[in-house]
Amino acid sequence: MNISHIEHIGIAVRSLDESIPYYEKVLGLKCYAIEEVGDQKVKTAFFMVGQTKIELLETTDDEGPIGKFLDKKGEGIHHIAFAVKDIEDALKETESKGIRLIDKTPRKGAEKLDIAFLHPKSTYGVLTELCENKNQ
Amino acid sequence: MNISHIEHIGIAVRSLDESIPYYEKVLGLKCYAIEEVGDQKVKTAFFMVGQTKIELLETTDDEGPIGKFLDKKGEGIHHIAFAVKDIEDALKETESKGIRLIDKTPRKGAEKLDIAFLHPKSTYGVLTELCENKNQ
Repeated sequence: MNISHIEHIGIAVRSLDESIPYYEKVLGLKCYAIEEVGDQKVKTAFFMVGQTKIELLETTDDEGPIGKFLDKKGEGIHHIAFAVKDIEDALKETESKGIRLIDKTPRKGAEKLDIAFLHPKSTYGVLTELCENKNQ
Repeated sequence: MNISHIEHIGIAVRSLDESIPYYEKVLGLKCYAIEEVGDQKVKTAFFMVGQTKIELLETTDDEGPIGKFLDKKGEGIHHIAFAVKDIEDALKETESKGIRLIDKTPRKGAEKLDIAFLHPKSTYGVLTELCENKNQ
């Protein structure tokens, strides 16, 4: 697999309105976009830190993946996303090496990236996303 | 605060021997160093991904911070570390803005960086490390 960098780190928060000021006023980062991703039942806020984005995730539905995560574990780091060159190929290779996939084929994520998740039971506890930007 | 990039992401694992092959053979990253950090009761393995390191953390003591984390939460992402220009200044600024510090002054971490942690109760659930490389 050809990973170029960490595309983003997803962080589950109870409220964007409450947490964005911490990232802006304490850490000095700038929220450059807020986007609702209906498919994942989240509203996201993005910050750029060098090559990598911080993606804050607020649930729009208690039964969605972030709603369940907050219920079970509380606020905190939810996933890590690696930028890959050819996501279809990366998924095939990953599966062939015995890794359990959550998404067998890519779907559209925030910022119109093609994304797919690997199961944390196969990745030593880390919910791992692969993503490719085909819009470049 | 002047954050240039994400210096590393710390991931708690039960065993470096078991998890390193996943990072190398599935994700295609290369473990470039293994280091024991006595102060933090961990053995660490490092991988470079673009600007950012992945730091796998295996405990050397069940009562150490990673031992307790594994007991409570299991394997997974433990902390995120931001590279800052002047860590003493960043800590002063952070505290003046009402953030609870775990380390009031920097201490030496892995790779001889000067590091300090912010308390996750003040940072919306994310154990946050600031670090400065004064060896450059």
